[in-house]
This record gives sequence, structure tokens and C-alpha cells, in this order.
Amino acid sequence: MTQYKAPLDDLRFALYDVLGAEATLTALQGGDGHTRDLLDAVLEEAGKLSEQVLAPTNASGDEEGCHFDKATQTVTTPKGFKEAFRQFAEGGWAGLTMAEHFGGQALPSVLGTATTELFQSGNLSWSLYPLLSEGACHALELHGNDWQRERFLKPIVEGRWTGTMCLTEPQAGSDLGLLKTRAEPTANNTYKITGTKIFISAGEHDLTENIIHLVLARLPDAPAGSRGISLFIVSKFKLNDDGSLAARNAVAAGAIEHKMGIRGSATCVMNFDAAEGYLIGQPHKGLAAMFTMMNAARLAVGVQGLALSERALQNSLNYARERLQSRALSGAAFPDKPADNLLVQPDVRRMLLTQRAIVEGSRALLLYTALQTDIEARATDEAARKQASELVAFLIPIAKGVVTELAQESTKEALQIYGGHGYIAENGMEQFVRDARIITLYEGTTGIQAADLLGRKILQLQGVGLKYFMQEIAAFCQQHAKDESLRSLIGPLATATKQWGDMTLQLAQRVQANPEELGAAATDYLYYSGYIALAYMWARSAAAVSAGNQTAAFKQAKLDTAGFYFSRILPRCLTHQAAIEAGVGSLPTII
Amino acid sequence: MTQYKAPLDDLRFALYDVLGAEATLTALQGGDGHTRDLLDAVLEEAGKLSEQVLAPTNASGDEEGCHFDKATQTVTTPKGFKEAFRQFAEGGWAGLTMAEHFGGQALPSVLGTATTELFQSGNLSWSLYPLLSEGACHALELHGNDWQRERFLKPIVEGRWTGTMCLTEPQAGSDLGLLKTRAEPTANNTYKITGTKIFISAGEHDLTENIIHLVLARLPDAPAGSRGISLFIVSKFKLNDDGSLAARNAVAAGAIEHKMGIRGSATCVMNFDAAEGYLIGQPHKGLAAMFTMMNAARLAVGVQGLALSERALQNSLNYARERLQSRALSGAAFPDKPADNLLVQPDVRRMLLTQRAIVEGSRALLLYTALQTDIEARATDEAARKQASELVAFLIPIAKGVVTELAQESTKEALQIYGGHGYIAENGMEQFVRDARIITLYEGTTGIQAADLLGRKILQLQGVGLKYFMQEIAAFCQQHAKDESLRSLIGPLATATKQWGDMTLQLAQRVQANPEELGAAATDYLYYSGYIALAYMWARSAAAVSAGNQTAAFKQAKLDTAGFYFSRILPRCLTHQAAIEAGVGSLPTII
Repeated sequence: MTQYKAPLDDLRFALYDVLGAEATLTALQGGDGHTRDLLDAVLEEAGKLSEQVLAPTNASGDEEGCHFDKATQTVTTPKGFKEAFRQFAEGGWAGLTMAEHFGGQALPSVLGTATTELFQSGNLSWSLYPLLSEGACHALELHGNDWQRERFLKPIVEGRWTGTMCLTEPQAGSDLGLLKTRAEPTANNTYKITGTKIFISAGEHDLTENIIHLVLARLPDAPAGSRGISLFIVSKFKLNDDGSLAARNAVAAGAIEHKMGIRGSATCVMNFDAAEGYLIGQPHKGLAAMFTMMNAARLAVGVQGLALSERALQNSLNYARERLQSRALSGAAFPDKPADNLLVQPDVRRMLLTQRAIVEGSRALLLYTALQTDIEARATDEAARKQASELVAFLIPIAKGVVTELAQESTKEALQIYGGHGYIAENGMEQFVRDARIITLYEGTTGIQAADLLGRKILQLQGVGLKYFMQEIAAFCQQHAKDESLRSLIGPLATATKQWGDMTLQLAQRVQANPEELGAAATDYLYYSGYIALAYMWARSAAAVSAGNQTAAFKQAKLDTAGFYFSRILPRCLTHQAAIEAGVGSLPTII
Repeated sequence: MTQYKAPLDDLRFALYDVLGAEATLTALQGGDGHTRDLLDAVLEEAGKLSEQVLAPTNASGDEEGCHFDKATQTVTTPKGFKEAFRQFAEGGWAGLTMAEHFGGQALPSVLGTATTELFQSGNLSWSLYPLLSEGACHALELHGNDWQRERFLKPIVEGRWTGTMCLTEPQAGSDLGLLKTRAEPTANNTYKITGTKIFISAGEHDLTENIIHLVLARLPDAPAGSRGISLFIVSKFKLNDDGSLAARNAVAAGAIEHKMGIRGSATCVMNFDAAEGYLIGQPHKGLAAMFTMMNAARLAVGVQGLALSERALQNSLNYARERLQSRALSGAAFPDKPADNLLVQPDVRRMLLTQRAIVEGSRALLLYTALQTDIEARATDEAARKQASELVAFLIPIAKGVVTELAQESTKEALQIYGGHGYIAENGMEQFVRDARIITLYEGTTGIQAADLLGRKILQLQGVGLKYFMQEIAAFCQQHAKDESLRSLIGPLATATKQWGDMTLQLAQRVQANPEELGAAATDYLYYSGYIALAYMWARSAAAVSAGNQTAAFKQAKLDTAGFYFSRILPRCLTHQAAIEAGVGSLPTII
């Protein structure tokens, strides 16, 4: 069984010392009250809920899994999930970042990101039920009309219902242009939705009395491909005029998937059989509407990588402290014990520092990105909003793509420290590896993130976000150019960032000559960008320790991990650069 | 459900064209008959057994798992395992490489390695039952007396019984010096063995009527630590004088583990309660005796990495061929279909070529190493035997450590190509990832392999094996220096090999000054060495295509993959070099 303690000190360090979130947030529109005191109080409550209610259901939920009853087409979630959701709803967590007039608390997104980390560390499977609601809320908020919001959004914000996002079909995964689900208009301004959706998280469950599905489908006159897709609301139960539940709608789960991990999350096949639906937004503009919530969803999946890695690290560090095996290379460190602990082994420290560098670097990057979404939404200055918006667009594929991939490594190393004991289910480490394996796949595979970064954010949008980001790094480097204590970080960061810019320009030219070069370079470019972004976060973390009021040991750990990152992780860029330079000629046709 | 087809063409290419195994084997003592015809016939039969009998039980065996009955302390293996073992035994596979006077067929080890790949691809969990027997056979052959061999070895060679290796205890994993199991001498020259062993593969099962345990334990007068360990034979059933089974011995399974993968393999807690045992070899020399079989066991685990990666690659390649999704970057490749297949995406080819480079490079390296074990055992020239022995000692930690780690990447990329469908149990890809996760842990973790390579094989033994290996690479490079078609491979190979030698010397000096430097560099040095070894195998593969009689497409695929390896995988050495140079200063104390 694994332990979990909410890493509040690390979260506060990242939020306040590294990112200066308090000053930023209180200067935003509606941010007067978003002081450190308020934020800290929220983080503490979220930490308690996660430690006390969610964390204990993580292993049992995995073992028990969800159960589907074919006769009634109902899903039973694992023991404890329903009660946890009740407490979550009662605590107002479902509406944490939603506007007050929908019943939310209008707290900053960056705080939502921080609390999401805590909940996901507690129980990733469970956290998927409210996560999908969040996406549905955003869609309804941005694209629904007043009647739709009143009717469908408010109950989700209150935590009485949950939402889903129904995109994927058997023949339409990464390529949603291939989807076939049909929507036929009826006389009363509703639509009959017919088709089969797969991989629908929280498509059916027993946590709430109703579920609101947001469904992509084609109208009869829809153009082929991705420009002919519209977005619809389909409620599990039809509603009476007063919003109370009426008869079942013609939508039901046909099966749940048996998966490698996140076994407490109900991944459903959803059958729509002329189900009553309401169009949201404009006809044929459904994909664009979906994409407006994609950023939030992708950021949240990046946070899943952080959340799993954090909990895996906590446990592997404890194990390395307590497991006695062999002696230090330079002689017994604990001669009065039968053997030394694993921490005396430099190779074990290498695995632990790798995890730390990934976890804390990822946390800073994710919170940095989330903070930009707050600036984007609520800065008083339009130019600031615009710049933040570009930064978000640019950083999302990195935050999702790289953090989720690094979580594979991080959870793997955590298991490795346990040796053979890591492979045994009851020790809990293997669940993190299994759970983590989904996050490079859903909400856009790593390849999709890479294509989004290089193809859309760099080439199509001419790298505006990249330029802002590089300018910010350059300013940071200049600001600290004379800081002796940061010398070993600032120089390499400035050099690597310069190379990043040069490489991007060269690559853009090559892609112009041959579009296939985009696909040949994209994933390595994604990693390269991610390692620079994390280097920037680690340099900022190292720069931040001088001002903070933490213990000397806490500060030293940050400086040590920053040094480790720069000397042993950042050099991975060399490999990715070589791969990028190899070009599409290195990827010949396969028959 | 996944498919499997024995990769006989690739095996033959590696064996005959790349490694010249026929000429080598027929020149060895007792090797007259070991012609290509004979080897091919054996490979074909092994392929049939794997495809037809083992492969169909892989997914079902995982789903069903092993069942332990507490009352009778018996294990029921999954459906089909017993019948498969019967066919395996009847085919004489259990004694394939064992001496004829024990009932074996005395075929070369390299052939055993090749057939082991086929069986492990078919069903890794199942293959662990005969694998552990092999280790026990080697121990009995090398260290048992005539009476012990007659009594215990022959029935295993005949496939009537199986064997185990009982090393690990709860407090003694990587550090066997900590083990506590006791052996007390009795009047009749036997010993009473008492203690608990964990993680015992095939410790209890229903495939055969008896099981022979090889158990590490301490005699009453044993010195503390690893120099006080002896090796004992404990038979599940005591034997009558004629070798027939008598009463149960006081050894039994107490439980089986619930594991992340290899769920068809019974991983047992074994309780010895004054069980009757026989000492093998000298008192207190048990660990040395165990180590003589370690090479074979570690090589076989390296082969597991290959076997899983091969099957995962076959399926991900098929999927990439058949799955229609999106269009090629430079325009529709299959305009008459609703979408192009995944193969048109350079990023998907990158994932496939990564797998191919790992799979076929690993196969060549493992067979090369196995061939050296045949030379070591049966060359007519003593100097050749000595050199092969040094090469084997040097290559085993690489073959085990690096191939198993690369199998993590390879199986992960195979799953990734399936997108979300890779996460669904019934598609079978996630089982490869789960099964693969054990192989970097058992038979010595990657950290243990790294320490063995750098600490023992390079520094203690003064790198004799490395020198032979580097000389061989240098000779190969010189031989092909003027070959235009290999120019892009030979130059980088020669340069990288030179750097490897230089780095090794520098590292040796640093370790002399501070032994902690060994642990700080070992794992990165292991990877670095592995990537050079694979580069050599790929250069040899590219050089071999000109002489072979395969199709042009087959040859082109080898050249393409070699080019891919050199341009996109070999540069990983840059990162590992930087990490090695960072030294132990980059791995500060963690409290």
C-alpha cells in the first residue's frame, strides 16, 4: 500500500516563490481577494480531502474496478467513490473556478490546477469523474445559450450531475473528421442523435443522478470531414420544465472497457439511439467549440503526470530510506545495522533526483501555464491578455506532451527502486505505472501534441508564443547574469535557448521545402522544447530560494535538484537535436 | 488479441549472414553435425510449437492467472499450460542443449537462445517454467556429484520434473549476504533446511509430478555475509532408492504473488520447514556456484526483452498498416480510401523503426553473446576459449541490462501506435508492457548489471573483455574502411568506439580516486556501452546484406534500419556521456 501526503510546501514554493502568483493574481480583474492566505486555506482543505478521503480508495478502487450490469446498463463504481464525490460536491470543489453566477467560486485557474494535482494524486481514477464535468462546464459556459446554461450547467457546478465529452468513435480517433454519429433536426428545435461513441470516461456511473453528454455529431447537410461537425447536449434523463428529471433519454452505456489501468474509471461505449439533443453554438462549428475546452483538458492531463509522479516519488523515497541492503561503495555508512539503506547508493540517488527533477520542474511549468490562463482571462491590460493567450497556446502541447511522457519515466524509476517488490500489486507502485500509461494517449497522443506544437503553434502561428517565451527567458538570464550562485545554470540556459531559436528557424525552412519534415522532427522537437522549458523552471526555482523563508535543507534540495537537472537531464537535448537534424531521410517508407 | 509469427527469416539472417554461426559451430568440438540444415529444422519446429501451442495461451493465461489453493498448498496453472509443457517435454526441448549422457541433445547454446526467443514470444509466463529448470540443470551439471545428477538432473532433462532457484528472502534481495535460511547437518549426510524464500518462479505448479529446488542457505558454522552461503538440493517429494517418488518433503508454497504481469507464472513464497536437502558442491561456496549459472539466466532474461519486443513490433506494424486515420502531410496517399494508413506518418515510422532497431540489434547482440558461450565451451583452441569467456563475462551485463531496458521503450512505443486502443486489455498490447516490466528487476536489477559491468568486468578484471570487443570492432571497421556503401556507419562506429575507450580510462582513474564515482556513472556507462554494442551489430548487419540471398525489400529494410539507428539512436551516447562526466557531485546526499 502506498502513502500520500499533500506536498503543500512544494506547491507553495512553486506558486509564491518561483512564480510570484500572489502579486499576479491580486492584480487581475476580480482578484482582490485572491491572497496567499485564501489560496493556502483552499490548498490545505484540498490536501485533507485528498489524503483522508481519496488516497485510501486508490488501491482498493483499482482492485475492485467498475462493474457493468448488462441488463440494466448501469455502472457501479468502486467502494468509497460515491461518498468521496458527495464530500467533493458538498465542499464546493465542482465549481471552484466557475463563475459565481453559475454557482461557482470564481477562484483562479492556477488554484484549480494546484487542487487538481492533489485530487489526482489521491486517486486518479476517481478524479476523472469531476474532470470531465469541468470540460463540459467550459463548453456550456462558452458556447451554450442562457437557457442551456441554466438548465444543464448549474447542476454540474453544484456537483449534482456530471458531464462527459463524447468525441471518439471506433473509426474516428485522432482524426475526428471521420466521425459518423448523426443528428437529425425535429420539429421542436431538438435533434435526434444516433451513433456509437467509445472511450467515454464517466459515460455512465452511480455518483450522481444525471449525466450531461456533450456529443459531436453530423447534421444532415453537413460538409464532409472536420468542417461538418456540430456539438450537442444529450442529457441521460430528459428534463421537466422545472429542470427535474423526467424519463430516460435514448442514450445508454453498451459496455465498459477492461483497461491496463485507471480501473476505477468507467470508460464506456455509449450508444445513442435517436436520443434527444440540443445544438450548442453554431451548426458545423462543433470541432472549434470542442477545441476551446481542449487547453484546459490537456493541461489537466499534464497535471495527471505530475500527480502520479509525485505520489510515486514520495513512496520510492521512503522505500530508499528504509530498505537496508548492501553497503556504501566507500564503506559502511550505518555499521551498526545489518546493511546500509538504499540512499547511500549514487545510482539510487540518480533515480530519485531524476524523479524530483521531473516532478518539481513539471509542477512549476504546469502552474506557470495555468497562471497564464488566469492572465489571459482577467488581466486589465489587453496586450497582457493577448500575450498570455499566445503563451498558453504555445505551452499547452509541451505541458501535456512532455509532462505525460516524463511521467512514464518517473513512475518507472519509482518502481525500479523497489526492485522485485515494485512488481507486486500489493505494494502499489505498479499501479502508478499502469495508470500513467493512459496519459500519453488520451486528450491527444504525444504525436498529436508534437504536431500541434510544431505544425500549428510554431509554423502556422509563426511561433508568436515561442518568441514571448524566449524573450522572457532572455530577460531572466540577463537579470541574473551577475549572480555568482546561479552561474552554472544561467549560462547553459541562455545557450540552450539560443540554440532552440536557431534550430526552430532552420526547421521552419526545411518544412517549407518538404512538409514531411514536420512529422519527422515533431516529437523530438517537442521533447527538446520541454527540456528547455523545464530548465527555465529549474533556473527560476534556484533563483527563488534566496528570498523564501523555508528551511536550509528545503532550499538545498532545490539547488541540488536544479544542478542535477542541468548536468544530467538537459543534455538530452543533444540527442533530440541530432534526431531532428537527421530529417525525414532517416525515416524511409515501410511497407 | 495479438498475432505472432516466428521471425525465422530474421533469425536466420542474424545467425548465418551477420554472425556466420554455421562456420563457427561446425568447427567446434562435437560440432560436426551442427550445420545450417540441422539448425533450420530445429528453428522451424520451435516456431511451430510457439505459434500453434504457446502463442494462443498468452492472453488467456494472463487473464486467468495462476490459482493457489491454501488448503492443499497447490498451484493451478492457466488452461493450456500443462498440455503445452507435455508437448515441449515430448519434443525433447527440455534437454536441447544438455549433454547426451544426461539425456540431452547437446545442441549449441546459440540455438538454445534462438529457440528460447521463439518460446518466450509465444508466452513469456509459460516459458518461465522450463527456464528455471535450465538454471537448475546447469547447477546440477557443474556442481552436483554423479549420484545427484543421476537422481535429480536426468528427470529434469527428460521434462518429467522442473527445477527452481531459491535465492531471495524478504530481507535479502540484491544483497544475498543477508540471507538467513539455515541448513543443519543430520546423521545420514543430508541437511535440514529451514527458512522462507520469496519470488520463487515455478516454486509450485501442476505441470510435472516433482520439482527440484536449488536453495541457498547457511550451515551452522558459516561465516557471516556472502562467504557463508551453501547450495542445497531440496526435492518436493522425497525419492525412493529407485528414484521414484516417496513422501512429501517439508517444503511447500505458502502463497503466490499478485503481480503487474507474467500472471501465468507462479511466483511463490516457499516455506522450508526442516526439509531434507543435499549439499551441492563445497560448503560456503554456494554463491560462487550460483554465479556460474547466472550468465545463462541473465542472457535468457535479455532474450525475454527481445521476445516481447518482437511480438509487440509485429502487432504494431500490422496495426499501422491497417488503421486508417488522417492524411499524409504532403497530401492523400490513398485518396480512394476514407483516410491514409498510419504508415504515411513519419512520426509513426519513427516509432516503428525505433522498435525494429531495438529488436533486431538486440537479437544480433544476444545471439553473438550466446555464440561466444559455445566457443567458450567447445573451441579446440584454448586461447579462443579464454577469449570467448572474457567476452561473455563482459557482454552479459550489457545483454541483460540494456536489452531489458530497451524492451521497456520498445513495448511502450508499440502500445503508443495503437493510441487509446493500446490501453484496452483485449487488444493485448498492454500485456507486453506489463510483462516486460519485470525483466529489468529479476536476475539482477539494471543497477546491479551496471555495477557488474563497470565495477567487476571493467575495473576489477581490468576490462579484458572490453579490449577484445573493441579490437574486434576496430578490425571490422578496418576491413570495411573502403566500402562506400557503409561509409555513413563505419566512420561513426570507429569514432564512438574510440571515445568509449577513452572515457573508460578516464572513468577508471576517477573511480580509483573516489569509489562513489562508480555508482554515479555505472548505469549511464551501461547504456553507453549498449548503444555502441548495438551500433556494431547494426554495422555488421548492414555489411552482411550484400552476401545474403534475401529479397531486395528484406535487404533494404536492414539498411534503412541501420541508417536509422546511427542517425537517431546512437546519438543517445552524447547524453550518457554528459551524465557520466557530471560525476558523483551531481548526486548529492538525500536525507
